[in-house]
Amino acid sequence: MLLTTEDYRESLRAYNPTVFVNGQRVESVADEPLLAPGINGVGVTYDFAQIETSRMLMTARQGSSGKTVNRMLHINETSTDLLHKLEAVRLVCAESGCAQRYLAHDALNAFYQATRRTDDTHGTEYFERFLNYLHMVQDRDLALGIAMTDAKGDRTRRPSEQDNRDAYVHVVERRRDGIVIRGTKAIVTGAPYMHEFLVMPCRTHRPEDRDFAVACAVPVDADGITIVAKPAGRPGEAAARFSARYGQSVGVVHFDDVFVPHDRVFLDGETEEGGFLTTSYATHHRHSCIGARAGFGDLLIGAGALMSEANGLDMARHAHMRDAMVDLITITESFYACGVAASVYLTEDPAGCVMPDPVYSNIGKLLLATKIYDMHRLAHHVSGGLIVALPGPEEDHNPETRASLAAVMQGRPDIPAAQRADVARLIEDLTASHQGGWYSVISLHGGGSPEAMKREIWRNYPVTDRSEMVSRLLDRGLVDQGQIPHRQPGRCCAKGCEVPSMVPSAAE
Amino acid sequence: MLLTTEDYRESLRAYNPTVFVNGQRVESVADEPLLAPGINGVGVTYDFAQIETSRMLMTARQGSSGKTVNRMLHINETSTDLLHKLEAVRLVCAESGCAQRYLAHDALNAFYQATRRTDDTHGTEYFERFLNYLHMVQDRDLALGIAMTDAKGDRTRRPSEQDNRDAYVHVVERRRDGIVIRGTKAIVTGAPYMHEFLVMPCRTHRPEDRDFAVACAVPVDADGITIVAKPAGRPGEAAARFSARYGQSVGVVHFDDVFVPHDRVFLDGETEEGGFLTTSYATHHRHSCIGARAGFGDLLIGAGALMSEANGLDMARHAHMRDAMVDLITITESFYACGVAASVYLTEDPAGCVMPDPVYSNIGKLLLATKIYDMHRLAHHVSGGLIVALPGPEEDHNPETRASLAAVMQGRPDIPAAQRADVARLIEDLTASHQGGWYSVISLHGGGSPEAMKREIWRNYPVTDRSEMVSRLLDRGLVDQGQIPHRQPGRCCAKGCEVPSMVPSAAE
Amino acid sequence: MLLTTEDYRESLRAYNPTVFVNGQRVESVADEPLLAPGINGVGVTYDFAQIETSRMLMTARQGSSGKTVNRMLHINETSTDLLHKLEAVRLVCAESGCAQRYLAHDALNAFYQATRRTDDTHGTEYFERFLNYLHMVQDRDLALGIAMTDAKGDRTRRPSEQDNRDAYVHVVERRRDGIVIRGTKAIVTGAPYMHEFLVMPCRTHRPEDRDFAVACAVPVDADGITIVAKPAGRPGEAAARFSARYGQSVGVVHFDDVFVPHDRVFLDGETEEGGFLTTSYATHHRHSCIGARAGFGDLLIGAGALMSEANGLDMARHAHMRDAMVDLITITESFYACGVAASVYLTEDPAGCVMPDPVYSNIGKLLLATKIYDMHRLAHHVSGGLIVALPGPEEDHNPETRASLAAVMQGRPDIPAAQRADVARLIEDLTASHQGGWYSVISLHGGGSPEAMKREIWRNYPVTDRSEMVSRLLDRGLVDQGQIPHRQPGRCCAKGCEVPSMVPSAAE
Amino acid sequence: MLLTTEDYRESLRAYNPTVFVNGQRVESVADEPLLAPGINGVGVTYDFAQIETSRMLMTARQGSSGKTVNRMLHINETSTDLLHKLEAVRLVCAESGCAQRYLAHDALNAFYQATRRTDDTHGTEYFERFLNYLHMVQDRDLALGIAMTDAKGDRTRRPSEQDNRDAYVHVVERRRDGIVIRGTKAIVTGAPYMHEFLVMPCRTHRPEDRDFAVACAVPVDADGITIVAKPAGRPGEAAARFSARYGQSVGVVHFDDVFVPHDRVFLDGETEEGGFLTTSYATHHRHSCIGARAGFGDLLIGAGALMSEANGLDMARHAHMRDAMVDLITITESFYACGVAASVYLTEDPAGCVMPDPVYSNIGKLLLATKIYDMHRLAHHVSGGLIVALPGPEEDHNPETRASLAAVMQGRPDIPAAQRADVARLIEDLTASHQGGWYSVISLHGGGSPEAMKREIWRNYPVTDRSEMVSRLLDRGLVDQGQIPHRQPGRCCAKGCEVPSMVPSAAE
Repeated sequence: MLLTTEDYRESLRAYNPTVFVNGQRVESVADEPLLAPGINGVGVTYDFAQIETSRMLMTARQGSSGKTVNRMLHINETSTDLLHKLEAVRLVCAESGCAQRYLAHDALNAFYQATRRTDDTHGTEYFERFLNYLHMVQDRDLALGIAMTDAKGDRTRRPSEQDNRDAYVHVVERRRDGIVIRGTKAIVTGAPYMHEFLVMPCRTHRPEDRDFAVACAVPVDADGITIVAKPAGRPGEAAARFSARYGQSVGVVHFDDVFVPHDRVFLDGETEEGGFLTTSYATHHRHSCIGARAGFGDLLIGAGALMSEANGLDMARHAHMRDAMVDLITITESFYACGVAASVYLTEDPAGCVMPDPVYSNIGKLLLATKIYDMHRLAHHVSGGLIVALPGPEEDHNPETRASLAAVMQGRPDIPAAQRADVARLIEDLTASHQGGWYSVISLHGGGSPEAMKREIWRNYPVTDRSEMVSRLLDRGLVDQGQIPHRQPGRCCAKGCEVPSMVPSAAE
Repeated sequence: MLLTTEDYRESLRAYNPTVFVNGQRVESVADEPLLAPGINGVGVTYDFAQIETSRMLMTARQGSSGKTVNRMLHINETSTDLLHKLEAVRLVCAESGCAQRYLAHDALNAFYQATRRTDDTHGTEYFERFLNYLHMVQDRDLALGIAMTDAKGDRTRRPSEQDNRDAYVHVVERRRDGIVIRGTKAIVTGAPYMHEFLVMPCRTHRPEDRDFAVACAVPVDADGITIVAKPAGRPGEAAARFSARYGQSVGVVHFDDVFVPHDRVFLDGETEEGGFLTTSYATHHRHSCIGARAGFGDLLIGAGALMSEANGLDMARHAHMRDAMVDLITITESFYACGVAASVYLTEDPAGCVMPDPVYSNIGKLLLATKIYDMHRLAHHVSGGLIVALPGPEEDHNPETRASLAAVMQGRPDIPAAQRADVARLIEDLTASHQGGWYSVISLHGGGSPEAMKREIWRNYPVTDRSEMVSRLLDRGLVDQGQIPHRQPGRCCAKGCEVPSMVPSAAE
Repeated sequence: MLLTTEDYRESLRAYNPTVFVNGQRVESVADEPLLAPGINGVGVTYDFAQIETSRMLMTARQGSSGKTVNRMLHINETSTDLLHKLEAVRLVCAESGCAQRYLAHDALNAFYQATRRTDDTHGTEYFERFLNYLHMVQDRDLALGIAMTDAKGDRTRRPSEQDNRDAYVHVVERRRDGIVIRGTKAIVTGAPYMHEFLVMPCRTHRPEDRDFAVACAVPVDADGITIVAKPAGRPGEAAARFSARYGQSVGVVHFDDVFVPHDRVFLDGETEEGGFLTTSYATHHRHSCIGARAGFGDLLIGAGALMSEANGLDMARHAHMRDAMVDLITITESFYACGVAASVYLTEDPAGCVMPDPVYSNIGKLLLATKIYDMHRLAHHVSGGLIVALPGPEEDHNPETRASLAAVMQGRPDIPAAQRADVARLIEDLTASHQGGWYSVISLHGGGSPEAMKREIWRNYPVTDRSEMVSRLLDRGLVDQGQIPHRQPGRCCAKGCEVPSMVPSAAE
Repeated sequence: MLLTTEDYRESLRAYNPTVFVNGQRVESVADEPLLAPGINGVGVTYDFAQIETSRMLMTARQGSSGKTVNRMLHINETSTDLLHKLEAVRLVCAESGCAQRYLAHDALNAFYQATRRTDDTHGTEYFERFLNYLHMVQDRDLALGIAMTDAKGDRTRRPSEQDNRDAYVHVVERRRDGIVIRGTKAIVTGAPYMHEFLVMPCRTHRPEDRDFAVACAVPVDADGITIVAKPAGRPGEAAARFSARYGQSVGVVHFDDVFVPHDRVFLDGETEEGGFLTTSYATHHRHSCIGARAGFGDLLIGAGALMSEANGLDMARHAHMRDAMVDLITITESFYACGVAASVYLTEDPAGCVMPDPVYSNIGKLLLATKIYDMHRLAHHVSGGLIVALPGPEEDHNPETRASLAAVMQGRPDIPAAQRADVARLIEDLTASHQGGWYSVISLHGGGSPEAMKREIWRNYPVTDRSEMVSRLLDRGLVDQGQIPHRQPGRCCAKGCEVPSMVPSAAE
C-alpha cells in the first residue's frame, strides 16, 4: 500500500524512539517543530507517488513480487529502471532540496546483491531472509535510515585495535535466536523520523575484525537505541523561505546492546562480502546523489533566473550574466549526463538486478562534489550583493521602516519589492546560510570523499585496454605506412566491455 | 557496396581535381605522400566496416532503402542509432586521431531534415532529390567533404554588402537545367581526397541575401573548382610516430562559376531553411565531435599509462601521477557522457529521423573545446620533460652517439630504451607538435566557437520551466508549512518535456 | 589621541542614532548584544595600534600634520605605506574576519585625491576643507562608515529619470550655510556603530544628474538619518565559535532631508570628479580587500591544519590532504601577491599621495572574489563531513548523551574530543553558516562585481604597448634573420611605464 | 667588458666542441643554421645591455668587484636587484620567447651561497675559488650552460645502486691537481652555443653517494665532452614567423672522463651542501622563470590584440573576446605578481647576497606551469580557427592561387591580408607548433615538476604560525565575549617573519 505524506506522518506515532535534539528529549517526533521540515522532505517521496503526473516515475513494479512499489524501495532490473530512478530523485529533490529517502533505495539494492553473493560463497540463507524483509518494507511503504558511517575513533587503527571498541558497531553476543550489537554510527540522515534502520559496515574488514562485519535491520525504537540529532533545516526562521519548510536532520545513533532476531540479520562475520556491500551501496548511492544535486541545480537555475529578472537585467544585453547562467546549466547537466551514462552502461548482477556503471557514477559524484561551490558562486553572481544585505523579514512589519525599505527594494518597476525580497531570501537560504553550508559539505563528503571517488575510478577504469591499444599502434611501426593491413579495433566504452554486448541494454 | 581502404584509394584515381599543396600542383591525389596520412585516416572508416569485431558498430541498415550502409553515411532513426554512431566515431578516432568522415554523416542527417522541412513549407521537391542522392552515395560508399565555412571577409557586413561578394559562396546564375555557384569556402576538412563536396550555408541569411542560401552537391573535380590544401599530418617526419601515418588535410576551396544540375540542388534561396540546415548540422556535428575527442582521449590515456610505466613510476606510490590519470579519465568520460545523454534524450524530426538533444550536444562540445588543453597538460604531467628533450630519431642511427644515448634513455630496467623513446615521441606528436596544436585549435573552434555553443545552450534550455517551478515554491509561502496539499511536480530533463513522454525513446 | 577598544565603545555613548535591528529600535548601540560582535571587530583596529608588537604596522605618521595616527586613517605617501597598510589589514582581519575600518582609509585617500583635483579644475576650495576634516578625524581617532552604494531602483534608468528620486542620495536644497541631502544608501558596513558617515556617489554621473554628484560628512545621529541594520555576526549562538565574538553589521541608511554645513561638503555638482572619486575609492578599496581576505585565508589555513591534526591524519602520508592545504596556501598568497605588486608599482597623485596600481589591485580582488568559494571547498576537504554532522553544543551539557558523544567525537587519542569539536564548529562558523555565506557574497560583490574588475583591468592595461611590441617583431620580418641590428625594447611592467622610471618608487 | 651579439657570436669560434644535431656533426657552431635561432636568443641578453633604454635594467654593479656586469651574471644584494632581474628577464623573453641566459644567473647566485656555506661548515676554500671564477666570467661576459639534470636511469634506485653508474655524473678519480668526472646530463639548455658548463647535482645525495655530489665548471670543448642537441627553434621554416629567428636548443651532454682542475671545483663530496645548492638554484630559477613566462605572456597579449583587430572584432561589442583578453592578462600578471612579492619578501643569505622568498617563487612557478595551457587556449580563443587552416607561405608565391587566397584572407578592409596572415602564423608558431609544444612542456617541467613546487611550498610555509594563531583564538573561548583584554597579533607575511623586520628590505 502506497502511503501519502499524512499516512507517513501518522505512522510515526506508532514508534517511540529515544531522540534528543538541541539537548532536549523529543516527546513526539510527528509533532516536533524542529523536525517538521525533515518529515516534509521525506513526504515529497510519498506524495509524488500519488500525483498523476509523477506517478509513472515515482512507482515501479517489483519483479520478485509483481507488486507496484515506491520507486525509492524498488530493485532495479533494467537500464530504464536506473534512468527512471535518476529522474525520480531529481524530481523530488528539485522540490525539497534533498528528499533523503533515496538512501533506502541505494541500500536495498546493495543488500539484494550482497546477500545473494554471500549465499553463493558461504552457503548461507541471507538472500531469502532479505527478500522477505524487502517485501514487508515495500508493502508497508516504510522510510528506512541507513546506519553505515561508524564513529571510527583513531583513524590510524583498525576497529578491534581501538581503545574504545564502540567506535564501530559490532556483534557483542551471538544468541540462539539472534545477535546483540553495540557501538555508534556517527552520521545517519533523517534518523529521528525513520521507521527502521538498516545497519551495515562502512568499510572492508580484515578477518580478525569479523565481529564488525555485520548487517541487519532494526526498528528505530528498539531497546538500547539512542538518537542525538540536529534540527532539520531552519524551522521557525522567518527568513528561511525554503528550509523552514524542507530540511534534513542528521543524527548520531548509539546502539547499546541492541538485540536483533535472526530473520533481520543479513550478514554476520563475512568480512569480504561486507566490503562488497559497502562498495555496492556506494555505487548506487553516488548515482542517486547525481540526481539529487541536479534537482538542487534546477532550484538554483530557476531562482537565479527570477532574481536577475527582478533586478531588471536583460540577459541578451548583459553577456556576463548569461554566461553565468550557462555555466550553471553546464555544470548541472554535465554531471547529470554522467548519471545517464551510468544508467546506459550498466552492470548486470548475478542476483538478477542491475547496478549503474561505477566509473560514470563516481565521475558524476566527483564532479558535483567539487562543483557545488561553483554553483553557489554562480547563483551569487547572477543575484548580486542584495541577498546578504537585505534587512530581515521582521522589518517588513516595522511601521517606521517598512515603507522606506520597500522603496529601496524596488528594482524593475513591474515586479513588487516583496517578490524581489522573497527570491533574494530564497537564494540566501539555499546558498549563504547554514542550509547552504550543509549542501556544500554533504555534496563534498556525503557518499564518500573526492579521494574515495578517485580510487574507485582508477580501480574500475580499463586503463590496460587503452595502453594495449596504443601499444598495437606503436608496434605496427612505420613500415606499414600507407598500407595498414591488419587492424584490431580497441574497446571504447568506459566499462571496457566489447562494444556490441554493451549496447543492447540501452536499446532494449 | 562497402569499400575497403584499398578500394577507396583506387576510386580516387577516377577523379582529377585541381589541388595545390605547399604551392605545388598535385598530380595524383592517391599517390601524393603529403596527403597519404589523410587518406589513411579516412581509410579506417572503411576498414572497420569490414572487420568482424567492429562491423556491427560501423554499419547500419538504412531505413529508406533497407540496405546495409557505412555508419558514416547512415540516417539515424533511434536512440540506439545515435549511441552507435557516437561509439563508432570514438572507435575510429582512437585509431586515427580524427577519421574525418563523420562530417559527411552529420551533413547528410541535416540535409534529410532540412529538405523535408523546406518541402513542407514551400512545396518544393528537395527531399525526393536528396533521397536519391543519398542512396547513390551509400551505394557507392563515397567520401564527402563538407564545404560550409565561407571566407566571410569583413565580419561587420552581411554577405551582399561585401566589397568582394566571393567572400561567400552564392548563386550567380539560374539556368534551365541548373544553377551556377561562385565564391570561396575557407576550411574544408579532407578536401583533396574526397569524392564530392556537400555545399551549404554557414549561417542564417536575411531575405535580401537569398542568393547565399544555397545547398548542393558537386564532384571534387567539377569545372571551376580549385583546392588549396595543407599537407595531412606530418608525412615523412621520422619523429612523427603517429601523424606520419594518420593526419588530416584542410583546404580552401574556390568555386569559380561551377555549374550544378538541378538534381543535385537541395536548397536555393530558402533563407530560413538554410539557417535550420546550418543549426541542425551543427547539432549532429557537435555530437560527433564528442565521440571523436573521446577517442583522442583514449589515445592519451593509453600513452600516458605506457609512459609512466616506462619511467618506472608506480601509480600506487605516486599519488599525483594517479591523480593526473584520473583527471584525464574524468575529463574524457564526462564530456563523453554528455554525448550519451544527448543520444538518450533525442529529438524526433518530422522527416522520420532523430537528432541528438541540442543542450547535451552543445555542453559536451563546449567541455571538450576548453578541456583539450587540460588533456594536453595532463598528458605532459604524467610523461615528464623527456618528450621535448629527447634527441631526434636520426641520432638512433648515429654510430658515435647511439650507444650512449640508449643508456641515457633507459628508465625501468626491463623496458627497452627504444620503447620508451617511442612512447615519448608519440606523446610529443599528439600534444606538443603541429599536429598537437591542430588538435587543440580544431577542438576549440571546429564545429563552432565556445561562444556559439553557449548561445545554443541558452536558446534551447528550458529556463522558464525552472523559474516557474521556483515561483510555485515561493507562491505557496509559509502558510502551508507542515501541510503541503497541492503540489505540481516540475519537469526535470534538459529538454523540458514531460518526464513520462521522454523516457520511452531511451527505453524502447 | 589613539583610542582603545574601551575608549571607542564609550565614545559611542555620545551619539544617539536612530537604529533598527530585526525590526526593533536599538536603545544603546554600545550595549546592544546584537551589535557587540561588530564593535569588537572594529575594536581590533584600535587595540592593535596599542600593542607593542603591532604598533609599528597599525600606526603611521601623517605627513600633512606630522602626527602619529591610526593606519586606518592615514594618507599614503610611499610604496612602503601601501605595503604596511596591506599587512595591517591582513593582520586585523586574521583576528576578526573583517575589521571593517579599512573602508574609512580607502575613502579618506580617495577624498584626498579628488578634492585636490576638483580644486585644480574648478577653482574650488574643497581640499583645504577636507584636510581640516581629516585632521579632526585623526585627532579624535573616529570610526567612519562609507555611504556609497545607492539603492539604484530601476537599473535601466539614470538617477534623475527614476520614478522615486530617493533611490539615489542627492542635494535637494542649497542654503547659504550648507546643503540638504535626501535619499537612500543601501549597503553601509558597520553603520550602527560608526561615529560619522562619509557620503559619496557610487558612479559617474552625467551633467544633468549633477545634484547626485555629492560628497560630504555627517554624524550618524544627524537629524533625518535612519539606519536599518542586520545583527553583526551570530551574537548569542552557542555554536558560533568565532562569529559570536566578531562580526559585521550592514545597514540601509535613509537620509531624510539631512542638513550638511559647508565645511563638511567636499563635492557638490562636479560630476566628472565624482566619478574620479568613486573609481579612486574603488582602487584603494580593492587593494585593502586583498589584505582582508588574505587574513581570512590565514584563519582557514590555521583551522584546516588543526582539524586534520585532530582527525589524526598525517599530511606526509595523505597526499591529497597536503595538496588541499597547498592549494589553500597558493590561492591566498597568489592574490595577496597582487596586493604586494600593486604597492610596488604605485601611481603618484598630484595631491602628493600615492595610489596602488589599478591593474594589480583589480586582479587581486578579482581572484579573491571567485576563489573564496574554492577556499571554502578546500577547508571542507581537509576537515571532513563532521563539521555539519556534529550535534550542537547544547548536547555537551545533556547528561544523557554527553559521555557517549564525547566518545564518538574522539579522533586522535591525545587530542580531547572537546578540542576537536571546537575546531569543527569554528570551521562550520567560518564557512558553512550565515557568516560563511556572508564572506562568500561580500568577497564576490563587495567593492564591485567581477565584471567591474574586468572592465577596470581592460581600461588600465597597456595593451597597445604589447601589440606595438609584437608589430615591431613582425615588421623586422625574416630578412634580418641572424643579424638583428636595431632593437627597441618594449615596456614590461603592468603600468606600461618606462622600466627605469618605475623602479625607484619601490627602491627608495 | 660587455659584449654585443656579434662579439658573442665571434667568441664562439674560439671553441671547438663536439656537437651533433639531427645525427650530424656540427663543424662550426657560430655558422650552423640549425643553431642560429638559439644564438640569436642568447644575443638579446647582450644587445639589451648596450641599448640606452634597457641598459639600466640589463646591467648591474657587482658588489665584490665594483664592476658593471651583465645582469644575467650578477649576484643580487637587495630587493631592488631581485626586482630588476625579474623585469630584465621579462624584457628579454618578450623579445626572444626565452633568452636562456638567466639560468647562468640562477646558478651563479646559488654557487655563491653554497660555497660560502660549505666553507663555514667544512673549513674548505670553495668560496674564494668561486669568487675568482665569477669575476673571470663577468669580465669576459661569458654564456654558461647549466648541466644539472642527470639521466637518472631507474627511478627506484639511488645513484650508486644503478646498473649503469653513468646515469648520474660523478667523480671517478681524484688527482693531485684536480678531479675526473664521468656520466650524462640529460637536459642542458643551449648546450652547443655556450662557452662553459656549470656542473651541479640535481638532488640531495646520501653520504654513501658522495661521489655524485660534485659541482664544477668546464669549458664546452673540454676533452671528453660530447653534446647531442636538437635544433634551436624552427630554423628555415617559412611559416615560422618567430621561431625561425629565435629558439632554444637543448642537449644531452656526455662527460667521458673529463678532467677538472682544482680551481674550477666548487663542491666535491659534501652531500648536504650539494642538496642546498640544488634547492637554492631551484628557488632562484623558479623566480626567473616567472619573468620569462611573463614575457611570453606579453607576446601572446600583443599578438592576440593584433589578431582580433585584423579579424575586425571590436572588443567593446564582443564581450567574450574582451573577457578572454582579460583572462590572459590576469593569468600573466598574477603569476608575475608572485615574482614581485618574492622580491619584496626576500631572504638574506650569510654569504652577503639575497634570495627571493621560496614560497612566492614556487607559487609563481606553479601557477605558470599549469596556466601556460590556458594561455594557449585564450590565444586561440581570440584568434579563431584560421591559425591552423591558413595555407602555408609557399602559396603566397604560387601565381595560380595567390590572388584568390589574398581575397579569402582579407578580414577588416583596412588591414592587408598579408598582415593578417603574418599575425596568424605568429600565433600558430608560438602556440600550435613544435615551438608552442616546447613552451608548454618546459613551463610545466622546467625548473622542477608541479609536485616539486608543492613540496617546497609546504616545506617553507609557516603553517604552525597559522594554527597557533587559531588556537589562541579558540583558547580565549567565549568567556571574554565583549571584553577582549590580551591579544597577541599573529605574523602575517608568507615568510612568517615578524612584520617590522620584513618591511625595511623593501623600503630601503
